[in-house]
Amino acid sequence: MLIVKKFGGSSVADKERIFNVANRCIEDYKAGHKVVVVLSAMGKTTDGLLAKAADINPRASKRELDMLLTTGEQVSVALMAMAMGALGVPAVSLNAFQVRMHTTSAYGNSRLLRIDTGRIRDELENNKIVIVTGFQGINKRDDYTTLGRGGSDTTAVALAAALHADACEIYTDVDGVYTADPRVVPNAKKLKEITYDEMLEFASLGAKVLHNRSVEMAKRYGVPLVVRSSLNRNEGTIVKENADMEGMLVSGVAADRNTARISVMGVRDEPGIAFKVFKCLAKKEISVDIILQSIGREGTKDISFTVARTDMQEAVAALKAEMDAWGATEVTYDDTVAKVSIVGAGMESNAGVAAKMFEALYSANINIRMIGTAEIRITVLIDEADVKNAMRAVHNAFGLDS
Amino acid sequence: MLIVKKFGGSSVADKERIFNVANRCIEDYKAGHKVVVVLSAMGKTTDGLLAKAADINPRASKRELDMLLTTGEQVSVALMAMAMGALGVPAVSLNAFQVRMHTTSAYGNSRLLRIDTGRIRDELENNKIVIVTGFQGINKRDDYTTLGRGGSDTTAVALAAALHADACEIYTDVDGVYTADPRVVPNAKKLKEITYDEMLEFASLGAKVLHNRSVEMAKRYGVPLVVRSSLNRNEGTIVKENADMEGMLVSGVAADRNTARISVMGVRDEPGIAFKVFKCLAKKEISVDIILQSIGREGTKDISFTVARTDMQEAVAALKAEMDAWGATEVTYDDTVAKVSIVGAGMESNAGVAAKMFEALYSANINIRMIGTAEIRITVLIDEADVKNAMRAVHNAFGLDS
Repeated sequence: MLIVKKFGGSSVADKERIFNVANRCIEDYKAGHKVVVVLSAMGKTTDGLLAKAADINPRASKRELDMLLTTGEQVSVALMAMAMGALGVPAVSLNAFQVRMHTTSAYGNSRLLRIDTGRIRDELENNKIVIVTGFQGINKRDDYTTLGRGGSDTTAVALAAALHADACEIYTDVDGVYTADPRVVPNAKKLKEITYDEMLEFASLGAKVLHNRSVEMAKRYGVPLVVRSSLNRNEGTIVKENADMEGMLVSGVAADRNTARISVMGVRDEPGIAFKVFKCLAKKEISVDIILQSIGREGTKDISFTVARTDMQEAVAALKAEMDAWGATEVTYDDTVAKVSIVGAGMESNAGVAAKMFEALYSANINIRMIGTAEIRITVLIDEADVKNAMRAVHNAFGLDS
Repeated sequence: MLIVKKFGGSSVADKERIFNVANRCIEDYKAGHKVVVVLSAMGKTTDGLLAKAADINPRASKRELDMLLTTGEQVSVALMAMAMGALGVPAVSLNAFQVRMHTTSAYGNSRLLRIDTGRIRDELENNKIVIVTGFQGINKRDDYTTLGRGGSDTTAVALAAALHADACEIYTDVDGVYTADPRVVPNAKKLKEITYDEMLEFASLGAKVLHNRSVEMAKRYGVPLVVRSSLNRNEGTIVKENADMEGMLVSGVAADRNTARISVMGVRDEPGIAFKVFKCLAKKEISVDIILQSIGREGTKDISFTVARTDMQEAVAALKAEMDAWGATEVTYDDTVAKVSIVGAGMESNAGVAAKMFEALYSANINIRMIGTAEIRITVLIDEADVKNAMRAVHNAFGLDS
């Protein structure tokens, strides 16, 4: 088998953890597998480098930031190769330039275009464990780029796809995907399997086990992922196209507190008004989530929607600057709300799922302020103070603890 | 003018020093020059990385050590580009891979083979200051290599040669080359000019202003060097083919305490014996400097020579292991000696220089134990305790303070 194993920064934060990872990789190697390891920068290295940069130039060019940040993973891979060497196993470290990890030009948030697998295959043929820098690439100018948040996951999935790997294991500090955050819902259970689409919905809800871009790529190329912990031996969660959900309608419940409600009150009831409101936000690159349009007083409309809480101030300012043109009387906002969602590939073919969720919330005396739905997700906006009760009520209602 | 400026690790050790260097480079840029800057890793970065490596694997592969160490200069150049950006000047950082700094394969101590100047010229044409990582290269496998001690000086000289630069300025923490170490000889004077050959002799004597390899390369390609301080505005020392020594016979006096005398006593007086003695050391890669052969008792010979003090124990052990085969009776050694040398391009055409040196030492009551000479250098081995007096006496005798 050819196995790609990805370890995040906390998994290689110090000498002891580096050797822990080295040993786990060597187990597979000694079992006769070919092993490619993708690493992030050690611990808080990237934050440290960013702080250094900010101290020198708070508005440093993204090109130079990437030049700086890419040293972080290079240190990780070199030290890992040394650790494996110390354990008597031949290993070689490669960075984005050596792997020819071609990306788009965009510094700080580039996308992978093409990987030349020649060098990696050569080294695997020579019976080496190959250790590759995650998160980084090179563009057509031979400048370093970085892939943005969750970039090392994407590197691992892309390598698994390019190398036609038999498995792609993503090691994190949790040991899989749960039916809910165990800190909020104590009887949450780890899922054995989950579909790519469900994982995507979870990721977009702030359950940061895997970054969306890596899951999208895994789905596109059919790379089966395993999410598991580098700190224990527990079986992880498999992410794949068709997961065996054992008849479950819903695979999990997730909450997202990074949300705020904004309402534009009393806009004229004429065609194109909603378009203008959202165009005003699009210009600021602010994404809008759940949208609710209601009848206002005297032939006007109220338009409500949610944005990321971190975007709220900017959104409100932008809307206030243009509201007169729409005849709007007021922009109100509320950042004490949160989203709670259920996700499940099974709900597509089953009526009554929404009703069951709403009933559970009603029984728990929780007020639903807005509702949004997607193919395999139902989201409600509620008061942030109700999140815990809401998650537990919904989790129980769908029997996720059994 | 196209100017290559090289700054060592201590010159970029912190934010303040980085901006100091940035400003000095920007002065030249604003005066209309094209500027290429070569940097070492910041402060003690390289030592820190080596310590990390040693902690994980004291016998780490040199290939992985180079992969690790090359991150040091990459951090320096990225931060410098950011600093220049903060000062409003366009700058771009490039590492060995981006410059295609091709070297031999030898990790840890490779030699430069070829530099592709295309990218640097492009960036200079775009009116940017170009900041290049010193010390590092890539080999034909696209693996990182390092150039060994003094490597950044070599990078700067090689770039100056490849770019046909008008000047190559090496900034260090001293402000030039002196007639003697000012800490030992208080009235030592800074030299305005010195020849490549003199500089090479000084470097080999442990006066570590410039590394030999960089001077050799400067001499080969006729790159005029300026050695000066990054911490003040003093004029430095120019190193070139024919220096104007204003009739001086001797350009300076240097001492080297990293030396020890070894004597192999009573070897048989037959052809090839000396060869065998030195072959025994060559096998251990121990270099021998001054050699003295004298008549011993009863038709035997005593062979004395100096080695680096750090090699003494190994040399003595190797000699003792083989001495019986040469009929030797004893191996003696002394590590309380030191070398004092005078260097001067002018001495080639002037008799009496050696006599003047010996007379000065005699007048100061200093015993000469061995003498070695080269074309533009005369070296004496004396007791280490006499070094200060010897240097001052010789410095005065040749009027170097005037």
